[in-house]
Amino acid sequence: MTDDRRPLPGRIQKAPENFLSAGQLALARRARRQFMGKALAMGAGVSAAAGSRAQPAASPAAMVDDPAIVRLPAHSTGLGQPVAARGYGSPSQWERNLQRRESPGLTRVSAASVSFAPLQGLFGIITPNGLHFERHHQGWWDIDPNQHRLMINGLVRQARVFTMDDLMRLPQVSRIHFIECGANTGMEWGNVAVPTVQYTHGMLSCCEYTGVLLSTLLDMVGADTKNGRYLLAEGADGSSMTRTIPMANALDDVMVAWAMNGEMLRPENGYPLRLVVPGIQGVSWVKYLRRIEVGDQPYDTKDEVLHYVDLMPDGRHRQYTSIQEVKSVITTPSGGQVLLDKGYYNVTGLAWSGRGKIRRVDVSFDGGRNWRTARLENPVLPKALTRFNIDWVWDGAPAILQSRAMDETGHVQPRLNQLRAVRGTRSIYHNNGIQSWRLAQTGEVFNVQTG
Amino acid sequence: MTDDRRPLPGRIQKAPENFLSAGQLALARRARRQFMGKALAMGAGVSAAAGSRAQPAASPAAMVDDPAIVRLPAHSTGLGQPVAARGYGSPSQWERNLQRRESPGLTRVSAASVSFAPLQGLFGIITPNGLHFERHHQGWWDIDPNQHRLMINGLVRQARVFTMDDLMRLPQVSRIHFIECGANTGMEWGNVAVPTVQYTHGMLSCCEYTGVLLSTLLDMVGADTKNGRYLLAEGADGSSMTRTIPMANALDDVMVAWAMNGEMLRPENGYPLRLVVPGIQGVSWVKYLRRIEVGDQPYDTKDEVLHYVDLMPDGRHRQYTSIQEVKSVITTPSGGQVLLDKGYYNVTGLAWSGRGKIRRVDVSFDGGRNWRTARLENPVLPKALTRFNIDWVWDGAPAILQSRAMDETGHVQPRLNQLRAVRGTRSIYHNNGIQSWRLAQTGEVFNVQTG
Repeated sequence: MTDDRRPLPGRIQKAPENFLSAGQLALARRARRQFMGKALAMGAGVSAAAGSRAQPAASPAAMVDDPAIVRLPAHSTGLGQPVAARGYGSPSQWERNLQRRESPGLTRVSAASVSFAPLQGLFGIITPNGLHFERHHQGWWDIDPNQHRLMINGLVRQARVFTMDDLMRLPQVSRIHFIECGANTGMEWGNVAVPTVQYTHGMLSCCEYTGVLLSTLLDMVGADTKNGRYLLAEGADGSSMTRTIPMANALDDVMVAWAMNGEMLRPENGYPLRLVVPGIQGVSWVKYLRRIEVGDQPYDTKDEVLHYVDLMPDGRHRQYTSIQEVKSVITTPSGGQVLLDKGYYNVTGLAWSGRGKIRRVDVSFDGGRNWRTARLENPVLPKALTRFNIDWVWDGAPAILQSRAMDETGHVQPRLNQLRAVRGTRSIYHNNGIQSWRLAQTGEVFNVQTG
Repeated sequence: MTDDRRPLPGRIQKAPENFLSAGQLALARRARRQFMGKALAMGAGVSAAAGSRAQPAASPAAMVDDPAIVRLPAHSTGLGQPVAARGYGSPSQWERNLQRRESPGLTRVSAASVSFAPLQGLFGIITPNGLHFERHHQGWWDIDPNQHRLMINGLVRQARVFTMDDLMRLPQVSRIHFIECGANTGMEWGNVAVPTVQYTHGMLSCCEYTGVLLSTLLDMVGADTKNGRYLLAEGADGSSMTRTIPMANALDDVMVAWAMNGEMLRPENGYPLRLVVPGIQGVSWVKYLRRIEVGDQPYDTKDEVLHYVDLMPDGRHRQYTSIQEVKSVITTPSGGQVLLDKGYYNVTGLAWSGRGKIRRVDVSFDGGRNWRTARLENPVLPKALTRFNIDWVWDGAPAILQSRAMDETGHVQPRLNQLRAVRGTRSIYHNNGIQSWRLAQTGEVFNVQTG
C-alpha cells in the first residue's frame, strides 16, 4: 500500500484533488490509524459485517475547518470526452501495465507459445477477453466467418456441413466455464519456483460461452452414439490440431461455441468457432473448429500420444488424463507483490474443479498447520472459477500462505509433495498441487516449494 | 440466413475452405433440407434434446468421392501471428460493425449524451466492457487513481478520506448486476418506434462488479444509521452529479466498486471508482465517486427533482422512482434484422428486474394472444440480466413477437398501453412495457406499438 499523504508542505497540497484542507487530512489520517488499530485488535476474527454503530460526532460543517478550496482538477471543471469516442472501448491509460505476457524462452518461436493472464490484477471470476490467456501451436488467425465451415462426418446417418449462419440459428445455450491449459503450473513439478502467479497459474481463464450443444449437432446428423464412442475434433489452423473427445462428454456438456463474454470469440481464442469441453484441459477446446468425426476408438493423435502425456517416475507415461482436477491459488498477495503495511488485508484467490462445483476453500497462513475457511463469492457454478476471499491481519512476522480447495465430489487439492510421491518431478502436465507464497518480514512475497 | 453454397461453377469451388468436393456439398445440402423439413414437422414443440438416434450410413471414406483437395487457405498451411502480439486484445476485424453508437441529435453535445450497447449482437448476460453503454453528463475522463480520493462525512462518528489503496485492501465482494438507464426505452412512451433494439433498449448492460460493500465503509466511519436515513453520492466530474441513496439500500447491497468484468473500471464507466446500486436506475450509480455524505433527509439535487422525474398525465411529476421494474426484450430477431428463410429459429432475449431474480419469461408470436414459456439460461441471479431462449419455426406468415417477464416478487411486465393508461405518453423514464417486433412476410422485422 502506498501512502502519498505525507506531511503537508503548506496550506495548498497536491493530494485529494485539492479540495481537502489540512484539517480534513489530519482527521482522515487519525481515522485511518484508528481503523488499523481496531482491525489489529479484532485479530483473525475480523469481520466486515460485525462492529458496533457509533454516534455521530462530526457534521459536514465541522469538517471544513479550512475553506481553502483551490485549484480544482480539470476533470471537475472541464468538458470531458464525448460518448462513443471509442465505438469499442479499451482500458484506462493507468492500467497499461496489466497485460498478458509471454514467458521469454519458454518456446523457440512465439507463434507456438503461451501468453499468460495477469491473475494478480484480476477480480471476480470473469476474465476480460482482452486478457484471456493464449496458447497457439502455429500462431493465430482472423478467419473470415463467411468462409468458415464445420463438417460432421464418420459414424453418422448423414454427414453435414454447417455454415456459421446454420449454427447460429440453432438452439443455443450460454454457460460460464473455466479453461485451463494442462501444462498450467507445469514448471512447479521440479524446483523451478516461477516468481509470479501470472506465470505459475496464468494459463487459466473463465468466460461465459454461447453456442450450440454438440449433442444437438450429433442428433441432427444421426450420430451412432452406441458404436461411436469417440469423436475427433479438428482445427483449421496449420498446427493440424486434433483431439479425441469421449462420446460421454459430447452428449453431456460439450459446446460448439461462437461467443465468449457476450461477444464473438476473439481471433486468439479460435474465432469464429471453437469447441468448449468443460472441465477438460484447454488443448481439447479445439480452436478454429472445422471438423468433427464420430469414430469407434480413440484417435491417438500426435497431441495426445506424444504431447500432453504425464511422464511417470518409472519412465512410462500416462495418456488421456484430461480432467483438470480440483485446484486453487491465492492471487493477492502473491509472488512479486509487496505488503507495505502491517494490519488488515483481504486475501483473495481462485478455485476450480473439472469435476463440478467448488464446495469449500481453506486458507493457511502458517504453511499448512492451521486452516480457516474462506468466503466463496456467488455464483458458484460447475466447472467454473470460484472467487474466494478471507480476512487476515498481518502482524509483520514472516508467513506462508496457502489455499486448499475441495469440490462437490469430495476431491481435495493435494500438497505438491503428495503429488510428487506418485508422479515424480519430471512431469509437465496436470499439477494441481497446493501453491505456497512466502511473505517475508520486509513485506515481499516469494514463491516457495515447502511441500 | 445467408447461403453461399450455390450451384457449383466447376470442380473447384470457393466455399468450405476448398477442402469439400461437389459430392460432399451435395450431401450437406441434402442433410440441411432434411433438417429443415424435420424441424417444420416437429412444429412448435421442436426440442434440441429430443429426436431419435439413427444408424450410421456414411463413413469418412464414403464422403470423399472427389479427391480434389486443392488450394488450402493460408491459415491451414502458414504460420500465424505470435502470442502476446496484442498484450491487450481486441475483437476480430470481421466484427468491426458491432459498436456502441450515439443516437445523432438526441442531445446537443456528445459530451452530454448516450451511446447504446448493440444488444442485437450480444450473447449470454455479460456485456463486454468495450461495448458497455455510456451516459455522460459532462463527458468522460481518465482520472489518475493515485490522486483520487473518497471522502465519507456527514452524520458519522469520524469522517474519513480513503485512497484507492485503502479501499482495495478492505473486505471485497464480486457480484453480477445489470445497470439500466432510467431513460432506457424512453422514446417508446410516445409514438416514436425506434427502429432497432440497440436504440430501444441499449442503455442496458450487465457486469461482474468487484468492490467493497458500502455498509463496510459506513461501519468504519461510524455512520449514524438511525438518524442518517439518506446518503448523498457525489461524482468528481464537472457535471456535479449528486444523487440521494436511501440508507436501507446502502446497508443492503450497494457497493463501492473499482472493477467490472475482472478488470478495473473503464474510464467511460467511472474509473477508478463508482457506486453500484443494484436494481436502481443508472444515474444513481455515481461515476468517479469522490464523496458520500450521511444525512437525515433526501437531498433534492438537480438530477432528482428536475431530471429523472416521471411526468404524469395531470401535469404533476413523480420523484424518486428509482427501481428498474421487471422488463424483457427479444434481441433476435429484432428491429432491422431480416430472416432470409422459413423454418427453425432460436429466438433469444434478455430479462431483468430491480426487485430480484427473474422467475419466468413467456414469449408470444401472435401479438399476445398465445404465450409459451422460454428456457432461462443459468445463472439466474438477483438484479442481473437473465438470458432466455425459445424454439420457434417460422411458417413464413407475418407475426408479432413479444416477451413478458415475471420476477420472483410476482411483478409482471405490463403492456405498453397499460402503462400509458396510468402514466400518459409524455414521460421519458421508467418504461418497462412489453416490446413488440413485427415480422413481415419478407422476413423484415419492424418495431411496432401494438399495445
